[in-house]
Amino acid sequence: MRLTSKDKLVMIGDSITDCDRARPVGEGLFGAIGKGYVSVVDALLSSTYPELGIRVVNMGTSGNTVLDLKDRWQTDVIALKPDWLSIMIGTNDVWRQYDSPTIPEQHVYLEQYEATLDQLVTEVLPSVKGIVLMTPFYIEPNTQDLMRAEMDRYGAAVKRIAEKHNTLFVDTQAAFNQVLEHLYSGTIAWDRVHPNHTGHAVLARAFLQVIGYDYNKGL
Amino acid sequence: MRLTSKDKLVMIGDSITDCDRARPVGEGLFGAIGKGYVSVVDALLSSTYPELGIRVVNMGTSGNTVLDLKDRWQTDVIALKPDWLSIMIGTNDVWRQYDSPTIPEQHVYLEQYEATLDQLVTEVLPSVKGIVLMTPFYIEPNTQDLMRAEMDRYGAAVKRIAEKHNTLFVDTQAAFNQVLEHLYSGTIAWDRVHPNHTGHAVLARAFLQVIGYDYNKGL
Amino acid sequence: MRLTSKDKLVMIGDSITDCDRARPVGEGLFGAIGKGYVSVVDALLSSTYPELGIRVVNMGTSGNTVLDLKDRWQTDVIALKPDWLSIMIGTNDVWRQYDSPTIPEQHVYLEQYEATLDQLVTEVLPSVKGIVLMTPFYIEPNTQDLMRAEMDRYGAAVKRIAEKHNTLFVDTQAAFNQVLEHLYSGTIAWDRVHPNHTGHAVLARAFLQVIGYDYNKGL
Amino acid sequence: MRLTSKDKLVMIGDSITDCDRARPVGEGLFGAIGKGYVSVVDALLSSTYPELGIRVVNMGTSGNTVLDLKDRWQTDVIALKPDWLSIMIGTNDVWRQYDSPTIPEQHVYLEQYEATLDQLVTEVLPSVKGIVLMTPFYIEPNTQDLMRAEMDRYGAAVKRIAEKHNTLFVDTQAAFNQVLEHLYSGTIAWDRVHPNHTGHAVLARAFLQVIGYDYNKGL
Amino acid sequence: MRLTSKDKLVMIGDSITDCDRARPVGEGLFGAIGKGYVSVVDALLSSTYPELGIRVVNMGTSGNTVLDLKDRWQTDVIALKPDWLSIMIGTNDVWRQYDSPTIPEQHVYLEQYEATLDQLVTEVLPSVKGIVLMTPFYIEPNTQDLMRAEMDRYGAAVKRIAEKHNTLFVDTQAAFNQVLEHLYSGTIAWDRVHPNHTGHAVLARAFLQVIGYDYNKGL
Amino acid sequence: MRLTSKDKLVMIGDSITDCDRARPVGEGLFGAIGKGYVSVVDALLSSTYPELGIRVVNMGTSGNTVLDLKDRWQTDVIALKPDWLSIMIGTNDVWRQYDSPTIPEQHVYLEQYEATLDQLVTEVLPSVKGIVLMTPFYIEPNTQDLMRAEMDRYGAAVKRIAEKHNTLFVDTQAAFNQVLEHLYSGTIAWDRVHPNHTGHAVLARAFLQVIGYDYNKGL
Amino acid sequence: MRLTSKDKLVMIGDSITDCDRARPVGEGLFGAIGKGYVSVVDALLSSTYPELGIRVVNMGTSGNTVLDLKDRWQTDVIALKPDWLSIMIGTNDVWRQYDSPTIPEQHVYLEQYEATLDQLVTEVLPSVKGIVLMTPFYIEPNTQDLMRAEMDRYGAAVKRIAEKHNTLFVDTQAAFNQVLEHLYSGTIAWDRVHPNHTGHAVLARAFLQVIGYDYNKGL
Amino acid sequence: MRLTSKDKLVMIGDSITDCDRARPVGEGLFGAIGKGYVSVVDALLSSTYPELGIRVVNMGTSGNTVLDLKDRWQTDVIALKPDWLSIMIGTNDVWRQYDSPTIPEQHVYLEQYEATLDQLVTEVLPSVKGIVLMTPFYIEPNTQDLMRAEMDRYGAAVKRIAEKHNTLFVDTQAAFNQVLEHLYSGTIAWDRVHPNHTGHAVLARAFLQVIGYDYNKGL
Repeated sequence: MRLTSKDKLVMIGDSITDCDRARPVGEGLFGAIGKGYVSVVDALLSSTYPELGIRVVNMGTSGNTVLDLKDRWQTDVIALKPDWLSIMIGTNDVWRQYDSPTIPEQHVYLEQYEATLDQLVTEVLPSVKGIVLMTPFYIEPNTQDLMRAEMDRYGAAVKRIAEKHNTLFVDTQAAFNQVLEHLYSGTIAWDRVHPNHTGHAVLARAFLQVIGYDYNKGL
Repeated sequence: MRLTSKDKLVMIGDSITDCDRARPVGEGLFGAIGKGYVSVVDALLSSTYPELGIRVVNMGTSGNTVLDLKDRWQTDVIALKPDWLSIMIGTNDVWRQYDSPTIPEQHVYLEQYEATLDQLVTEVLPSVKGIVLMTPFYIEPNTQDLMRAEMDRYGAAVKRIAEKHNTLFVDTQAAFNQVLEHLYSGTIAWDRVHPNHTGHAVLARAFLQVIGYDYNKGL
Repeated sequence: MRLTSKDKLVMIGDSITDCDRARPVGEGLFGAIGKGYVSVVDALLSSTYPELGIRVVNMGTSGNTVLDLKDRWQTDVIALKPDWLSIMIGTNDVWRQYDSPTIPEQHVYLEQYEATLDQLVTEVLPSVKGIVLMTPFYIEPNTQDLMRAEMDRYGAAVKRIAEKHNTLFVDTQAAFNQVLEHLYSGTIAWDRVHPNHTGHAVLARAFLQVIGYDYNKGL
Repeated sequence: MRLTSKDKLVMIGDSITDCDRARPVGEGLFGAIGKGYVSVVDALLSSTYPELGIRVVNMGTSGNTVLDLKDRWQTDVIALKPDWLSIMIGTNDVWRQYDSPTIPEQHVYLEQYEATLDQLVTEVLPSVKGIVLMTPFYIEPNTQDLMRAEMDRYGAAVKRIAEKHNTLFVDTQAAFNQVLEHLYSGTIAWDRVHPNHTGHAVLARAFLQVIGYDYNKGL
Repeated sequence: MRLTSKDKLVMIGDSITDCDRARPVGEGLFGAIGKGYVSVVDALLSSTYPELGIRVVNMGTSGNTVLDLKDRWQTDVIALKPDWLSIMIGTNDVWRQYDSPTIPEQHVYLEQYEATLDQLVTEVLPSVKGIVLMTPFYIEPNTQDLMRAEMDRYGAAVKRIAEKHNTLFVDTQAAFNQVLEHLYSGTIAWDRVHPNHTGHAVLARAFLQVIGYDYNKGL
Repeated sequence: MRLTSKDKLVMIGDSITDCDRARPVGEGLFGAIGKGYVSVVDALLSSTYPELGIRVVNMGTSGNTVLDLKDRWQTDVIALKPDWLSIMIGTNDVWRQYDSPTIPEQHVYLEQYEATLDQLVTEVLPSVKGIVLMTPFYIEPNTQDLMRAEMDRYGAAVKRIAEKHNTLFVDTQAAFNQVLEHLYSGTIAWDRVHPNHTGHAVLARAFLQVIGYDYNKGL
Repeated sequence: MRLTSKDKLVMIGDSITDCDRARPVGEGLFGAIGKGYVSVVDALLSSTYPELGIRVVNMGTSGNTVLDLKDRWQTDVIALKPDWLSIMIGTNDVWRQYDSPTIPEQHVYLEQYEATLDQLVTEVLPSVKGIVLMTPFYIEPNTQDLMRAEMDRYGAAVKRIAEKHNTLFVDTQAAFNQVLEHLYSGTIAWDRVHPNHTGHAVLARAFLQVIGYDYNKGL
Repeated sequence: MRLTSKDKLVMIGDSITDCDRARPVGEGLFGAIGKGYVSVVDALLSSTYPELGIRVVNMGTSGNTVLDLKDRWQTDVIALKPDWLSIMIGTNDVWRQYDSPTIPEQHVYLEQYEATLDQLVTEVLPSVKGIVLMTPFYIEPNTQDLMRAEMDRYGAAVKRIAEKHNTLFVDTQAAFNQVLEHLYSGTIAWDRVHPNHTGHAVLARAFLQVIGYDYNKGL
């Protein structure tokens, strides 16, 4: 288990991370952490390692692209002084190209996406113990689907950045692919983007695996 | 134009037809006709042929399968004494097999679907001037997609019934396919099922074509 | 068809245009385009010409007079860089004279109306491919009705401006007159101002005709 | 003044009478009497003749035609044992013919209207001190307007019934005509049917005149 | 009748005047004038003298004392350029002394009340055609009641100011006293302060009398 | 202290007792006991005598007269098997005579009031340990006030019944009179009927006194 | 893993199980399964064993005691034909004794609790593949606490029943005790009864352990 | 009785004091004083000593720690010029350490608590007639409970400050302990922090005792 006593883990992203978290900071009482994978991660960590006192903070914001992360990087990441940071971004960068094709100012194309994400990682890396880069995903098994294919290219960019900076890396698309061998995409997400509770468990398990979480501890 | 003066057209179906129509009968003031293709059909008919006084009634009900139509066929179709009747059903019959695979009592399989729809058409046919059978559709261009493939089989069943009874027939899937050559599925419907206003125009145009509507009349 | 690939069409006006559009810009997902004729125009354009990727933006604001358009011309028209622009204004300029006769500061009289509209057209003309000037209208067949007669004078002013600047022109009153030969005014609008879905189809068809839209393309 | 001490006046009608009255009986505390002409009548009577203790009851119901009055005549009129009764009905009987021309089952044509109203008056007449028959009206000065002309025919029927049974009679259309010489119809009612507070004062004054109300008493 | 064509009458006061008027100015469509005596005044004036086009504006604000009027005198009275102005203030100045005796900073005692009201009248008098000063009132017949007695002293102050400046004057307490001979205070107002519709008619009639309104004109 | 271990005290009445109690029985968690004097009684009893486990149940119902109590006496009193019962009724029996003088069917006159209350007491007396009869009251110091005078007559009737059956008796009017020597009626209740928290404390203290409550126990 | 392909697992209980599940059956789309441990169980099962198609149904109802389960045993358990059944009940049976000590009819004492639960198990056992009996719990580490001690006695009864019928057994109190060694009770549940997301994970992990769930499958 | 005529008592604290008081100042009409012990104190004082005209002001704010009091000390205490001041703070200072152990910036530890409170008392003491320092409390009888033990240490600090400055002192924990001998903690407060009406009476009685309140005065 890579996280140690009293480590603070900030998880940032878009609506898939947000899930009705509290503002301005998604941490604390009254469901402040939201209802998505961040909550599953926190619940499994705190129930399995209650002695560690790990602090999980949800900083996802619905609708965000990597450019929005850039705008709030100082206040929403750096200022929170995380020990660990996870980033899962890119869904909206791609999606707007496919659901709003006539509105180019809402699109974030691959080159800008990769450059911006790389810049954000570069900036925060020196001040944290570790970063977990998670790919965006598309819950569609057909790799010829235009948007799935594009999302795969963004995922590959995330992987390049993870390798370049030697961060931890979660291939969320691979995690979903494994489930999609047995379940139709619509069973997990009507819009192929926002997972139901099963999909959030897929994300949480994939994340927890890379940080060395041991589910069976204490059982 | 097949509809004549003071004809009453009842359009029945599921949520794609419903679109917040009034209860118990979707007709009259205050947006009673709902906000979907039925409204577009009515608006184009009444603005183009104001002299005909055609009466359009929306009897769609969200979540319905063909079995639900059967349950309300007497009150919601026969009792309304339509001159013309359109039926577009099947989405939920198929969808539940794919978004709720573990709940078989919510599934309506092909054989039962076809037999029930055939029975409904048989029952109402003698009392109407004409019937328009509209296939269900799935806004997904990949014909190998499991749900698209299944929906195509249901659409084929509709076509068989139309041919058997010699009714009018609308291939809504074909109408969407034409648009999908240029637009990604997510541009028209996030869940590949419920169209936005563009998709409802696709449905309305396909319907109006088979009843001989002439858009340019009066222009 | 006058609009070409990726053209951006901004449609500005009052509540008849607005119809619950999104703020600050009426474009994009979640019904941002509103529920009136702008939506019908967009739906018919995008379903008939999906390959063109035409971009329709609704900038109507309820209660506006031509003076309000002037106040927001820079931000709500010029700054959006439209290729095409439609303007339909004048209802409130006239209506307040008739429903609030004791409050003259809410009235915009003919001279000021014409001068202001002319100024707005003059200002934007050099930067667009085309302008569509639509008359205001009053859904009342009696030309002796005081408010109808006044609205006709405002419509004539719109025509003069269209001719002066050689823009496209839509006589919406004429379009409604054609329908009013068969339908009582109250069938289309209880207050003779805000049309129901039939009335919005009348407006959309009149608009689409002058831009060379071909409904039958692809059918 | 025709009403005497402790007389109970029931006023029945449609939405113009209703104006948010309480259910099941529009009388008593907390604005139970509604916000329309019935309230003005009650306010003027009780402030001018506080010593009489006249009891005013509002039994209007929005959307009612004379057929609806017939359905509730026993419970909503006879059972209340009024000393005086006013009836103003017919707006919806006519209006539905003009705003919903394709739905004939919502129309109440003149012959049935007159026969039903006559029957209701005949039934209640023996048990009351007096009846005030008020014509329906249409706030439109153009007597050639189709709906105004029709409403005039219904008003003439009310007059015939009043003369036949020798009841009091209020020509509400005449009262509005007098105002319409100076005010545009839209100043009093956007839809030419539901008056604003000025229009309700017109109705109240017309009603009060025929019952011999003396505004100047006590001033 | 003292008001002449197109005169603008501003009526200012506290909650008894306010009655849910629109903000910032209580004038125009959609019930902007509120639901109290101002509305009755406007309704009777406009239905009796439609040819005059008198403009009535409600500037009452719930909870106001004369000190609050002073604070908004410039924006809410002077800036509106009234031809006629009515003022009815003092209820809260007195009431807080009796319902909140421990909170002296909410009390406005008689001397300050009279001086402030006098100052406001002095300030606005040169710019208007006429002022109507209305006393505050307390719907309690017992003149020995502490609050009634105090209110009478405030009413006397209003009378002194009216006489000093030779303005029109309405003794609202006297008007209520006449009704209280026949009706118990609780029949008109549960809290002896906020009248029901009968009480607002009492106020309207008393006001209209001093401006020379003729109810019977046109009947 | 007359109540002993585990005694159940049911307190019935009108809105002054009700104060938003839970339905069907005003007892238990989540503020079920309401916000009035019943809650004060329960709070003082349970904090002073926690060892007794006294059970207080609020069965007040807004708007009730003694006739309403009679209608629900079996279900709302007898069936609850109280050890002790308090009754405070009569406000609405009197009030409707004064705020709704024209509606006699809402009035309960003195003779019927006394006879009915006597009957209710007679019926329940054999099955309880004790009854506390509380007079209705009117927060008005002027004994010449018509409604105060009438309320006093109803209070005298309660006293007669208490003496006849030898029950405990609370003169609530006397309790309020003591306070009214120092506070204006409007300080305790705007409508002279519904007390604020101070008035509810007056009621609670008067009630507790007759059951022998000792505030200083344990202090 | 004890559950096999297409097994249906019904989980019944009180508010800790309920967590806003859908009615009448907590299964299917739109979060029907609620937000508590049942959702965590379903999410982990379906993400880890997507090939099994296990069907999880939430039948918890807030406020229930074992007597309520008995009342709905036929419709809510037997009629659903579960393959597997989990039961966690007893919290309210005990809690009402401690938060509402004066209301004995809301208490379910130990003997009746054990007898009733035994009867329910006996009834359903023959028709299922397996039963998981879960103890009620109290998130309080002090075993001398009165309610904790009582809850332990109810838990022991559950254990006796599990042993008698040889069902699977989950000691939820033991699972919480392990966490309470490191976390204060209030960190998991403000009221020591309703767990936050961490507490629900404790319950889910304890449940999953006894059915042989393998978290690491597929990772 | 230590408070004398027209004394102003300000009571400040956290949510236990707040109880939905009005903003910005919790005093006056419409329940401005909130629904907790402050309201009980005010109700008992004003009903027992109506002649004193004591003024009670609720300045509690939910969620406050002593640091929040410090932030608003000038505006919410000093500026109100109290004659008497009560302070009950510390619950949240301690609670956050136990319900949110991972978020240290929300904790106020003992040393800072005592120093800050001492500073606030020092600052206000010269300008008031008297201060009542009330300990925070925890409705848990087990003195070994971690949070109860901590709360006792904070209570001891309050006592030290009271003794140092010779202020009045209320040991609220002792008051609750007396009740907890007979009632389980959950009978008074589900979360052991926010009392129900019984608990608020415990607080009010403890407070009133130290200011010399005589409940029996006037009875």
